[in-house]
Amino acid sequence: MANVYSERCPAREVLDRIADRWTVLVLGALADGPLRYGELRRRVEGVSEKMLTQTLRSLERDGLVVRHADEETPPAVDYALTELGASLEAPMAAVRGWAEQRIVEVQEAREAYDDRQGLPDLSA
Amino acid sequence: MANVYSERCPAREVLDRIADRWTVLVLGALADGPLRYGELRRRVEGVSEKMLTQTLRSLERDGLVVRHADEETPPAVDYALTELGASLEAPMAAVRGWAEQRIVEVQEAREAYDDRQGLPDLSA
Repeated sequence: MANVYSERCPAREVLDRIADRWTVLVLGALADGPLRYGELRRRVEGVSEKMLTQTLRSLERDGLVVRHADEETPPAVDYALTELGASLEAPMAAVRGWAEQRIVEVQEAREAYDDRQGLPDLSA
Repeated sequence: MANVYSERCPAREVLDRIADRWTVLVLGALADGPLRYGELRRRVEGVSEKMLTQTLRSLERDGLVVRHADEETPPAVDYALTELGASLEAPMAAVRGWAEQRIVEVQEAREAYDDRQGLPDLSA
Protein backbone atom coordinates (compact mmCIF):
# COMPACT_ATOMS: atom_id res chain seq x y z
CA MET A 1 0.00 0.00 0.00
CA ALA A 2 1.51 3.30 -1.10
CA ASN A 3 2.01 5.94 1.62
CA VAL A 4 3.34 9.45 0.96
CA TYR A 5 4.31 9.76 4.66
CA SER A 6 6.84 6.97 4.28
CA GLU A 7 10.20 8.40 3.22
CA ARG A 8 11.05 5.36 1.10
CA CYS A 9 7.69 4.92 -0.65
CA PRO A 10 7.82 5.73 -4.39
CA ALA A 11 4.57 7.71 -3.95
CA ARG A 12 6.48 10.14 -1.73
CA GLU A 13 8.95 10.88 -4.51
CA VAL A 14 6.04 11.44 -6.92
CA LEU A 15 4.40 13.80 -4.42
CA ASP A 16 7.68 15.72 -4.10
CA ARG A 17 7.68 16.14 -7.88
CA ILE A 18 4.07 17.26 -8.29
CA ALA A 19 3.89 19.50 -5.18
CA ASP A 20 5.69 22.15 -7.21
CA ARG A 21 4.53 25.61 -8.31
CA TRP A 22 5.44 25.15 -11.98
CA THR A 23 3.78 21.75 -12.23
CA VAL A 24 0.57 23.20 -10.77
CA LEU A 25 0.62 26.11 -13.24
CA VAL A 26 1.64 24.13 -16.37
CA LEU A 27 -1.05 21.48 -15.81
CA GLY A 28 -3.68 24.22 -15.52
CA ALA A 29 -2.41 26.00 -18.62
CA LEU A 30 -2.95 22.79 -20.62
CA ALA A 31 -6.40 22.09 -19.13
CA ASP A 32 -8.21 23.79 -22.03
CA GLY A 33 -6.23 22.04 -24.75
CA PRO A 34 -2.74 21.60 -26.25
CA LEU A 35 -0.33 24.54 -26.41
CA ARG A 36 2.95 25.27 -28.16
CA TYR A 37 6.03 25.91 -26.03
CA GLY A 38 5.95 29.66 -26.69
CA GLU A 39 2.25 29.88 -25.82
CA LEU A 40 2.92 28.03 -22.55
CA ARG A 41 5.80 30.34 -21.77
CA ARG A 42 3.56 33.41 -22.19
CA ARG A 43 0.68 31.87 -20.25
CA VAL A 44 2.78 30.86 -17.20
CA GLU A 45 4.13 34.30 -16.36
CA GLY A 46 7.53 34.39 -14.73
CA VAL A 47 8.68 30.90 -15.73
CA SER A 48 12.21 30.82 -17.14
CA GLU A 49 12.99 28.89 -20.31
CA LYS A 50 15.16 26.48 -18.33
CA MET A 51 12.47 25.85 -15.71
CA LEU A 52 9.69 25.38 -18.28
CA THR A 53 11.82 22.94 -20.27
CA GLN A 54 12.69 20.95 -17.12
CA THR A 55 9.08 20.93 -15.93
CA LEU A 56 7.77 19.74 -19.32
CA ARG A 57 10.41 17.01 -19.48
CA SER A 58 9.48 15.76 -15.99
CA LEU A 59 5.76 15.89 -16.80
CA GLU A 60 6.38 13.95 -20.03
CA ARG A 61 8.52 11.35 -18.25
CA ASP A 62 5.89 10.92 -15.53
CA GLY A 63 3.23 10.33 -18.22
CA LEU A 64 1.22 13.48 -17.39
CA VAL A 65 1.93 15.39 -20.60
CA VAL A 66 2.51 14.19 -24.15
CA ARG A 67 4.64 16.01 -26.71
CA HIS A 68 3.52 16.06 -30.35
CA ALA A 69 5.76 17.12 -33.23
CA ASP A 70 4.10 17.42 -36.66
CA GLU A 71 5.65 16.83 -40.09
CA GLU A 72 6.39 20.46 -40.90
CA THR A 73 9.91 21.88 -41.25
CA PRO A 74 10.72 23.10 -38.68
CA PRO A 75 8.34 20.78 -36.80
CA ALA A 76 5.57 22.46 -34.82
CA VAL A 77 5.68 20.97 -31.33
CA ASP A 78 2.82 21.07 -28.88
CA TYR A 79 2.14 19.73 -25.42
CA ALA A 80 -1.11 18.16 -24.19
CA LEU A 81 -2.37 16.55 -21.00
CA THR A 82 -2.66 12.76 -21.02
CA GLU A 83 -5.57 11.03 -19.29
CA LEU A 84 -3.26 10.60 -16.27
CA GLY A 85 -2.36 14.30 -16.34
CA ALA A 86 -6.01 15.30 -16.60
CA SER A 87 -6.77 13.18 -13.52
CA LEU A 88 -4.22 15.20 -11.51
CA GLU A 89 -5.42 18.52 -12.94
CA ALA A 90 -8.76 18.25 -11.04
CA PRO A 91 -7.23 18.47 -7.53
CA MET A 92 -4.61 20.95 -8.80
CA ALA A 93 -7.39 23.23 -10.07
CA ALA A 94 -8.88 23.15 -6.57
CA VAL A 95 -5.52 24.20 -5.07
CA ARG A 96 -5.17 27.11 -7.56
CA GLY A 97 -8.78 28.12 -6.91
CA TRP A 98 -8.15 28.07 -3.16
CA ALA A 99 -5.20 30.49 -3.54
CA GLU A 100 -7.35 32.86 -5.62
CA GLN A 101 -10.42 32.67 -3.38
CA ARG A 102 -8.79 32.83 0.06
CA ILE A 103 -6.03 35.36 -0.67
CA VAL A 104 -7.62 38.12 1.42
CA GLU A 105 -7.86 35.86 4.48
CA VAL A 106 -4.21 34.83 4.07
CA GLN A 107 -3.14 38.47 3.81
CA GLU A 108 -5.15 39.40 6.92
CA ALA A 109 -3.58 36.51 8.84
CA ARG A 110 -0.10 37.69 7.82
CA GLU A 111 -0.77 41.23 8.97
CA ALA A 112 -2.08 39.99 12.32
CA TYR A 113 0.93 37.67 12.74
CA ASP A 114 3.43 40.41 11.92
CA ASP A 115 1.67 42.79 14.34
CA ARG A 116 1.99 40.17 17.10
CA GLN A 117 5.69 39.78 16.32
CA GLY A 118 6.12 43.55 16.47
CA LEU A 119 7.58 43.61 12.96
CA PRO A 120 7.29 46.71 10.77
CA ASP A 121 4.44 46.55 8.24
CA LEU A 122 6.36 46.11 5.00
CA SER A 123 3.20 46.47 2.90
CA ALA A 124 2.67 50.08 4.11
CA MET B 1 -9.88 39.40 -9.51
CA ALA B 2 -7.05 37.22 -8.22
CA ASN B 3 -5.15 35.21 -10.86
CA VAL B 4 -2.33 32.79 -10.05
CA TYR B 5 -1.06 33.05 -13.66
CA SER B 6 -0.25 36.72 -13.17
CA GLU B 7 3.28 37.09 -11.84
CA ARG B 8 2.40 40.12 -9.72
CA CYS B 9 -0.86 38.83 -8.22
CA PRO B 10 -0.62 38.12 -4.45
CA ALA B 11 -2.44 34.82 -5.10
CA ARG B 12 0.57 33.67 -7.13
CA GLU B 13 2.87 34.17 -4.16
CA VAL B 14 0.44 32.22 -1.97
CA LEU B 15 0.34 29.40 -4.52
CA ASP B 16 4.15 29.33 -4.57
CA ARG B 17 4.08 28.90 -0.78
CA ILE B 18 1.46 26.15 -0.62
CA ALA B 19 2.62 24.17 -3.68
CA ASP B 20 5.33 22.69 -1.50
CA ARG B 21 5.93 19.09 -0.41
CA TRP B 22 6.23 19.86 3.30
CA THR B 23 3.12 22.03 3.37
CA VAL B 24 1.13 19.21 1.71
CA LEU B 25 2.43 16.66 4.23
CA VAL B 26 2.13 18.81 7.38
CA LEU B 27 -1.47 19.82 6.59
CA GLY B 28 -2.40 16.16 6.17
CA ALA B 29 -0.64 15.16 9.38
CA LEU B 30 -2.83 17.67 11.27
CA ALA B 31 -6.06 16.62 9.53
CA ASP B 32 -7.01 14.20 12.33
CA GLY B 33 -6.34 16.65 15.14
CA PRO B 34 -3.62 18.69 16.88
CA LEU B 35 -0.10 17.29 17.26
CA ARG B 36 2.98 18.22 19.26
CA TYR B 37 6.14 19.21 17.37
CA GLY B 38 7.84 15.88 18.09
CA GLU B 39 4.80 13.91 16.95
CA LEU B 40 4.69 15.91 13.71
CA ARG B 41 8.40 15.32 13.17
CA ARG B 42 7.92 11.55 13.49
CA ARG B 43 4.79 11.52 11.32
CA VAL B 44 6.34 13.48 8.43
CA GLU B 45 9.26 11.15 7.74
CA GLY B 46 12.37 12.77 6.36
CA VAL B 47 11.61 16.35 7.38
CA SER B 48 14.53 18.12 9.02
CA GLU B 49 14.05 20.11 12.22
CA LYS B 50 14.90 23.31 10.34
CA MET B 51 12.44 22.61 7.53
CA LEU B 52 9.60 21.61 9.88
CA THR B 53 10.13 24.74 11.99
CA GLN B 54 10.14 26.96 8.88
CA THR B 55 7.07 25.24 7.43
CA LEU B 56 5.11 25.58 10.68
CA ARG B 57 6.06 29.25 11.00
CA SER B 58 4.89 29.95 7.42
CA LEU B 59 1.66 28.01 7.97
CA GLU B 60 1.03 29.93 11.20
CA ARG B 61 1.76 33.28 9.52
CA ASP B 62 -0.56 32.43 6.62
CA GLY B 63 -3.35 31.59 9.10
CA LEU B 64 -3.50 27.88 8.18
CA VAL B 65 -2.17 26.50 11.47
CA VAL B 66 -2.52 27.76 15.04
CA ARG B 67 0.04 27.16 17.77
CA HIS B 68 -1.17 26.51 21.32
CA ALA B 69 1.08 26.61 24.37
CA ASP B 70 -0.47 25.47 27.68
CA GLU B 71 0.34 26.67 31.20
CA GLU B 72 2.70 23.86 32.14
CA THR B 73 6.42 24.35 32.75
CA PRO B 74 7.92 23.72 30.30
CA PRO B 75 4.87 24.62 28.18
CA ALA B 76 3.41 21.83 26.04
CA VAL B 77 3.04 23.25 22.53
CA ASP B 78 0.77 21.81 19.89
CA TYR B 79 -0.23 22.72 16.37
CA ALA B 80 -3.73 22.52 14.88
CA LEU B 81 -5.39 23.38 11.58
CA THR B 82 -7.48 26.54 11.52
CA GLU B 83 -10.73 26.68 9.54
CA LEU B 84 -8.72 28.24 6.69
CA GLY B 85 -6.14 25.44 6.89
CA ALA B 86 -8.85 22.79 6.90
CA SER B 87 -10.32 24.34 3.74
CA LEU B 88 -6.97 23.85 1.97
CA GLU B 89 -6.51 20.34 3.36
CA ALA B 90 -9.41 18.98 1.24
CA PRO B 91 -7.72 19.60 -2.16
CA MET B 92 -4.32 18.69 -0.66
CA ALA B 93 -5.72 15.32 0.45
CA ALA B 94 -6.81 14.72 -3.15
CA VAL B 95 -3.26 15.48 -4.38
CA ARG B 96 -1.73 13.07 -1.84
CA GLY B 97 -4.33 10.43 -2.72
CA TRP B 98 -3.54 10.85 -6.41
CA ALA B 99 0.18 10.16 -5.77
CA GLU B 100 -0.68 7.01 -3.81
CA GLN B 101 -3.30 5.73 -6.27
CA ARG B 102 -1.56 6.44 -9.58
CA ILE B 103 2.03 5.57 -8.60
CA VAL B 104 2.14 2.41 -10.74
CA GLU B 105 1.05 4.33 -13.87
CA VAL B 106 3.69 6.99 -13.20
CA GLN B 107 6.37 4.33 -12.81
CA GLU B 108 5.31 2.60 -16.04
CA ALA B 109 5.39 5.93 -17.88
CA ARG B 110 8.92 6.58 -16.59
CA GLU B 111 10.16 3.18 -17.73
CA ALA B 112 8.66 3.68 -21.20
CA TYR B 113 10.17 7.18 -21.43
CA ASP B 114 13.62 6.01 -20.37
CA ASP B 115 13.44 3.12 -22.87
CA ARG B 116 12.63 5.61 -25.65
CA GLN B 117 15.58 7.75 -24.60
CA GLY B 118 17.83 4.68 -24.60
CA LEU B 119 18.85 5.32 -21.01
CA PRO B 120 19.96 2.47 -18.73
CA ASP B 121 17.21 1.21 -16.40
CA LEU B 122 18.42 2.55 -13.04
CA SER B 123 15.70 0.70 -11.14
CA ALA B 124 17.09 -2.72 -12.23
